[in-house]
Amino acid sequence: MKKILVIHGPNLNMLGVREPELYGGFTLGEINEKIKGLAREIGVEVTIKQSNHEGEIVEIIQGALGNYGAILINPAAYTHTSIALRDAIASVGIPTIEIHITNIHKREDFRQKSLLAPVAAGQISGFGVNSYLLGLRAATYFLE
Amino acid sequence: MKKILVIHGPNLNMLGVREPELYGGFTLGEINEKIKGLAREIGVEVTIKQSNHEGEIVEIIQGALGNYGAILINPAAYTHTSIALRDAIASVGIPTIEIHITNIHKREDFRQKSLLAPVAAGQISGFGVNSYLLGLRAATYFLE
Amino acid sequence: MKKILVIHGPNLNMLGVREPELYGGFTLGEINEKIKGLAREIGVEVTIKQSNHEGEIVEIIQGALGNYGAILINPAAYTHTSIALRDAIASVGIPTIEIHITNIHKREDFRQKSLLAPVAAGQISGFGVNSYLLGLRAATYFLE
Amino acid sequence: MKKILVIHGPNLNMLGVREPELYGGFTLGEINEKIKGLAREIGVEVTIKQSNHEGEIVEIIQGALGNYGAILINPAAYTHTSIALRDAIASVGIPTIEIHITNIHKREDFRQKSLLAPVAAGQISGFGVNSYLLGLRAATYFLE
Amino acid sequence: MKKILVIHGPNLNMLGVREPELYGGFTLGEINEKIKGLAREIGVEVTIKQSNHEGEIVEIIQGALGNYGAILINPAAYTHTSIALRDAIASVGIPTIEIHITNIHKREDFRQKSLLAPVAAGQISGFGVNSYLLGLRAATYFLE
Amino acid sequence: MKKILVIHGPNLNMLGVREPELYGGFTLGEINEKIKGLAREIGVEVTIKQSNHEGEIVEIIQGALGNYGAILINPAAYTHTSIALRDAIASVGIPTIEIHITNIHKREDFRQKSLLAPVAAGQISGFGVNSYLLGLRAATYFLE
Amino acid sequence: MKKILVIHGPNLNMLGVREPELYGGFTLGEINEKIKGLAREIGVEVTIKQSNHEGEIVEIIQGALGNYGAILINPAAYTHTSIALRDAIASVGIPTIEIHITNIHKREDFRQKSLLAPVAAGQISGFGVNSYLLGLRAATYFLE
Amino acid sequence: MKKILVIHGPNLNMLGVREPELYGGFTLGEINEKIKGLAREIGVEVTIKQSNHEGEIVEIIQGALGNYGAILINPAAYTHTSIALRDAIASVGIPTIEIHITNIHKREDFRQKSLLAPVAAGQISGFGVNSYLLGLRAATYFLE
Amino acid sequence: MKKILVIHGPNLNMLGVREPELYGGFTLGEINEKIKGLAREIGVEVTIKQSNHEGEIVEIIQGALGNYGAILINPAAYTHTSIALRDAIASVGIPTIEIHITNIHKREDFRQKSLLAPVAAGQISGFGVNSYLLGLRAATYFLE
Amino acid sequence: MKKILVIHGPNLNMLGVREPELYGGFTLGEINEKIKGLAREIGVEVTIKQSNHEGEIVEIIQGALGNYGAILINPAAYTHTSIALRDAIASVGIPTIEIHITNIHKREDFRQKSLLAPVAAGQISGFGVNSYLLGLRAATYFLE
Amino acid sequence: MKKILVIHGPNLNMLGVREPELYGGFTLGEINEKIKGLAREIGVEVTIKQSNHEGEIVEIIQGALGNYGAILINPAAYTHTSIALRDAIASVGIPTIEIHITNIHKREDFRQKSLLAPVAAGQISGFGVNSYLLGLRAATYFLE
Amino acid sequence: MKKILVIHGPNLNMLGVREPELYGGFTLGEINEKIKGLAREIGVEVTIKQSNHEGEIVEIIQGALGNYGAILINPAAYTHTSIALRDAIASVGIPTIEIHITNIHKREDFRQKSLLAPVAAGQISGFGVNSYLLGLRAATYFLE
Repeated sequence: MKKILVIHGPNLNMLGVREPELYGGFTLGEINEKIKGLAREIGVEVTIKQSNHEGEIVEIIQGALGNYGAILINPAAYTHTSIALRDAIASVGIPTIEIHITNIHKREDFRQKSLLAPVAAGQISGFGVNSYLLGLRAATYFLE
Repeated sequence: MKKILVIHGPNLNMLGVREPELYGGFTLGEINEKIKGLAREIGVEVTIKQSNHEGEIVEIIQGALGNYGAILINPAAYTHTSIALRDAIASVGIPTIEIHITNIHKREDFRQKSLLAPVAAGQISGFGVNSYLLGLRAATYFLE
Repeated sequence: MKKILVIHGPNLNMLGVREPELYGGFTLGEINEKIKGLAREIGVEVTIKQSNHEGEIVEIIQGALGNYGAILINPAAYTHTSIALRDAIASVGIPTIEIHITNIHKREDFRQKSLLAPVAAGQISGFGVNSYLLGLRAATYFLE
Repeated sequence: MKKILVIHGPNLNMLGVREPELYGGFTLGEINEKIKGLAREIGVEVTIKQSNHEGEIVEIIQGALGNYGAILINPAAYTHTSIALRDAIASVGIPTIEIHITNIHKREDFRQKSLLAPVAAGQISGFGVNSYLLGLRAATYFLE
Repeated sequence: MKKILVIHGPNLNMLGVREPELYGGFTLGEINEKIKGLAREIGVEVTIKQSNHEGEIVEIIQGALGNYGAILINPAAYTHTSIALRDAIASVGIPTIEIHITNIHKREDFRQKSLLAPVAAGQISGFGVNSYLLGLRAATYFLE
Repeated sequence: MKKILVIHGPNLNMLGVREPELYGGFTLGEINEKIKGLAREIGVEVTIKQSNHEGEIVEIIQGALGNYGAILINPAAYTHTSIALRDAIASVGIPTIEIHITNIHKREDFRQKSLLAPVAAGQISGFGVNSYLLGLRAATYFLE
Repeated sequence: MKKILVIHGPNLNMLGVREPELYGGFTLGEINEKIKGLAREIGVEVTIKQSNHEGEIVEIIQGALGNYGAILINPAAYTHTSIALRDAIASVGIPTIEIHITNIHKREDFRQKSLLAPVAAGQISGFGVNSYLLGLRAATYFLE
Repeated sequence: MKKILVIHGPNLNMLGVREPELYGGFTLGEINEKIKGLAREIGVEVTIKQSNHEGEIVEIIQGALGNYGAILINPAAYTHTSIALRDAIASVGIPTIEIHITNIHKREDFRQKSLLAPVAAGQISGFGVNSYLLGLRAATYFLE
Repeated sequence: MKKILVIHGPNLNMLGVREPELYGGFTLGEINEKIKGLAREIGVEVTIKQSNHEGEIVEIIQGALGNYGAILINPAAYTHTSIALRDAIASVGIPTIEIHITNIHKREDFRQKSLLAPVAAGQISGFGVNSYLLGLRAATYFLE
Repeated sequence: MKKILVIHGPNLNMLGVREPELYGGFTLGEINEKIKGLAREIGVEVTIKQSNHEGEIVEIIQGALGNYGAILINPAAYTHTSIALRDAIASVGIPTIEIHITNIHKREDFRQKSLLAPVAAGQISGFGVNSYLLGLRAATYFLE
Repeated sequence: MKKILVIHGPNLNMLGVREPELYGGFTLGEINEKIKGLAREIGVEVTIKQSNHEGEIVEIIQGALGNYGAILINPAAYTHTSIALRDAIASVGIPTIEIHITNIHKREDFRQKSLLAPVAAGQISGFGVNSYLLGLRAATYFLE
Repeated sequence: MKKILVIHGPNLNMLGVREPELYGGFTLGEINEKIKGLAREIGVEVTIKQSNHEGEIVEIIQGALGNYGAILINPAAYTHTSIALRDAIASVGIPTIEIHITNIHKREDFRQKSLLAPVAAGQISGFGVNSYLLGLRAATYFLE
């Protein structure tokens, strides 16, 4: 299945507004354009969703079962607090790439621990908007 | 009041799909049938709800006030992360039985601590689908 | 901008019902009347919202951007568990006053740490319903 | 094998005397009658033993090998300090149900960690004398 | 009793000099004028003291017994190190408001824990000189 | 009841032999003579027991119920590891004085924490054989 | 030298006033009379001092050098925070008995650790005013 | 003295039965034969005891005083929980070799810390039944 | 400068041999071919080095100053133990991409903390040999 | 300004008396002579003070503002417990050299952490009386 | 393969010089003679190497692949700091015996944790030079 | 012996290049000139070495035995990670002065702990290049 589900977590709808010195000046719309552009270039299909609600993201992941070959997720704040997301990823068994715009490993202590990492295929962290593009390429390794 | 509210927490709608080696092969529908069967047998009325949303579960608990004599809850992932659920249980003051399908005390460190336990009447953990049935019996001790 | 957004977090709709020995006997409606009364007295405009949903509160905060000069929030349980709220406050950059009805610094260990404090302007804790009134006065210092 | 071994750990011979506000007013003799009553009702055979000696309990467990299909144990104080009991349970490989009269998860820190849980089938905690009755039912799930 | 005792802890006599980017540009004299002004406005009597000596502050608090209806204290460095102050406040049993100029909850780890909070009525933190004024209003809630 | 039960914990039968530079040169027999001498002098009756077995000490304590007005115990190694002893003391409700020959608060970390202290009336530590004599006097305060 | 220096630490001048349910109803004056009474009875000379100032207590201890054969100290709050007192005791090398009115080992965590214990001869804790009398007897063991 | 005392701790009487994938397939009897065989070969005399009781092992060690030149002990579960055994070994002052069948340093966290090691001459861990044979050779280094 | 330095840390010369179930079946030579292939494809120049010596890697990094526009490093075991590597990277100020073959965030605790992350531009972890290829693309973002 | 203020903290007036094996045999007077001798030799003016009172030292530091170009302080016990001293040093902004007679980094755990170090220019530790002389030289680097 | 590789870690070339009260009076040369003597006696072939360089030891281990049937290593300081050695041992898959001259389990905290133990077959600690001889015997169990 | 060995640890060859805002603008060559200048002035002979290799520094220290009367070392990154250096210093028994350019006690947590301090004579930290000059003077105190 050559379809990849891209999920933006909480507050990412504020990109460009939210602390641009940390997260860069691109809006979420601009980032989505870049993701779609690369998807076309490498020949995969992407669906992109954003939610600020933990429960909703749980259900977006559950809904991916049978419909997508890989998930690309920037779980943002929920990276560090949501066991529900972790359980959702484990329950669908779809290869999941965890990405972060900033290098979480050099930020506050509470941002250095990902509850999702143990169920993710891999993690990409610190390359700004390019984290999404690298993540999209990484996701394709798991499509057959 | 001989009515018991049964609440399934996040990702339990995936039972049977989700890691069956951990959680068993029954679907949520099948489990609900077993719960209802036992309820009939021992003469109590049950209402069963499932939600993946922390805020929604908070409101399900708030709504139980005056309507149910006991709550049976499998809080799943929110067991370990939700102070909001804990506060909701404390605010309604209804005897609440906390149950878990797996024995959380032998799993990952973060699953061994329940934020709800200090406001729950008791906890049953590790008996698969039977945890619900034992929990239902336990709940009846608190009905008058 | 002389407008202040007041946000009540999870379970505060249960005030008066919920553990009155801890949280006092006023209902949320009565508290809101007091807040509005003081607002009129000191000449500021207030909008008051309550939600039990983390994601919804995130969006209430996001929606404040450009519409309010200060936020007064009692984050309740989410004080201690929500990085998403913290990120929302940081993203809008509106001065935010964090208040608590009880003195969280003398309660359970897990209630003594606020994840929001590092992005809040200040914190007021322990004065019952008066925490809101003190907080409203504090908020006015940040309006220009 | 339809035989279940019930073990009461240290100080449980003081039940009824020992802190009744915590442990209830039943004596051990009365509890044993209830256990036997339920055993008759559900058609299983029980043997009941009590000991204050860690080494003796180790040997009671060792002696169960080949003679019982399940063990129901309230390890009391040894729950938290005895690796020897844990090793004994692991060595006989008999399904073991761990029960507690009080909800240990809301008591002192040192009572919240069970050294036995990782080798027990499941745990029931907080239902007073009913913990034994629920445990007995739970034990029957493991008899064939 | 409509009298309030205001206590400034160690190094607060250096205000205006001491790290103004943290503590603001007002001198202690100017702050005291503001406190007295508000006191007149809301009709309470205040006595104001400053000391750099832990033992002296202990005795100032002891001396308040029978003479003041509330204490407003900025314990500064002793917030985090003085059990003697805590015991003094507990011994006189006068409602005590703890205030801080900066938001201690976003500073160094050792400044985030108040040894006094468990015996204080409430805490106000982070509003600069206004912390004193909010604290004075808060103190009046405790006068009868 | 003017009877006091004196309990020597594990390895105290080795006194005089065991590390005399730590525990002094008196044998247990000699210490017992001193205890009896003082008992006669101050007019109380004492019974003295020694055991190396945790379970046996539990039962010695249980057996004190109704027979002794106070217990004087040097729990030795079990001070730091036995919740069973703690529960036994709590179950009989007899005022219990905990004594130690050495000053445990200046020894290895694991000897600085007493599991029994929270259920003991008081603790005397560091006076060699005199700890027993001081403890005997202390015990008399609890006899009526 | 048959002279013993008795030191009362901070807030002990409030005894009788300060939390009588914890510290008993005797005033410091009454306690001092008891101490002097026992001193006369057992034929030792005592000097009694009280101070709320850490530095002053340091100097009282320093001044004991050459003048007293033993020190009896209730360091109160400074037990847990004063390395200066510890160093003072070590510097004079006079046998020092540390006493506490309450059993500090069953109180708040921060009261369970004594910074002085490693330089004290022994510790007596939990016997109310009798802690002083037991301590005085203990001190006499160190006089020659 | 060319006599060595060999002590098997709790549950070692279950060897061959107990988790053979961890502890190997030899029974305790077979292991004892191997120990005796090597003892004969290298010309030392051995006495072998097993006990599941902490207090009993304490007394076996105490009884070794004057009768054995070295002790070889597999303390099993008591390695990690028994200060009483540690004190017993220290009290007799006989060189003691601590051995373990499995490599405890790669097992659960609580098995990686030996309370006995600080009073043992040395430790051998991880060689199955050969740990005993290596330990016996090691013990001979301490015989004169 | 369009030149990228690729550094393989300790034991990576054993790839293909070393735990293939963890690290995959490619040899280091094969991986280097893939890296060179992609470099040609995207038009950058690469130099590849491997060393098992911390000091040597420090000097390889120091030698990059002025010669390379970016560094791609798999620090392997030194990720978690080498402050010297961290200081070397900080001293040359060249953008450095940290990559790992396995997802270190789901391995042993000690592998989850990278000492280098705070000085690295970003981190890629868990994609097997593809981690190198993603890292090479990431490195190109930092070339001008 | 070529004037240096030298401050000796608590118990340093006992030097020569206090544990000479740790702190050396020189009295404070002799040390002061050495300091003055070196001051003359290198052409700086020194004022030397000693105090056992935390509050007094705070005020000595405050009084240095405008009068001294550097401070040389041996804070002794207050190194590890006084945030008030730390705040005083920060408030005056005078370069401060922290010295210790013993090497605090090899002593008790609680002596290894300096609360003052983050506001001190540098630290010299372990050279006996020479620590003062090295510190005096170090202080001169900060005079202009 | 009847060949055993013996590796001495850092500073072991200083044996006899280095703290003889800890490590004994034998030089490394003398120890090597003893090892060779025992090897001849029991019919195995040994190669002995020493290095102070972590990277070099990594490569010595890598070089053992295919050439030795077992490794006997005293990793000295690298026991506690080298993940690289651990990975090297894991990569070659040769049974490895870890030995220590002193009983590391009774030394400083940082010496009590071995990073190598989880990949070693077993560990022998505390028998002086005899640790090598016991280790050599242990190694022969793994040769076929 | 009037000879002093000066050792510069890893990355110090980058001084002047490496983060000059932290470490100052002097190159290692310039610092060495200053050291030699002061050595001539105070009449001692110095040898200066730099290495980035832990093993090499171990051997430099070993080689000092019999050749130097004191060692002056800036261990840089190895301060916090090298037990091998610590053991080397202990093995030669030469008085060793540990110096740091920056005040390590105000930097990252991991830089605040020196593994070498317990075997060093003393430590000087925070005076830039002057730390070397103060250290050289300190070293002379240990020459006879």
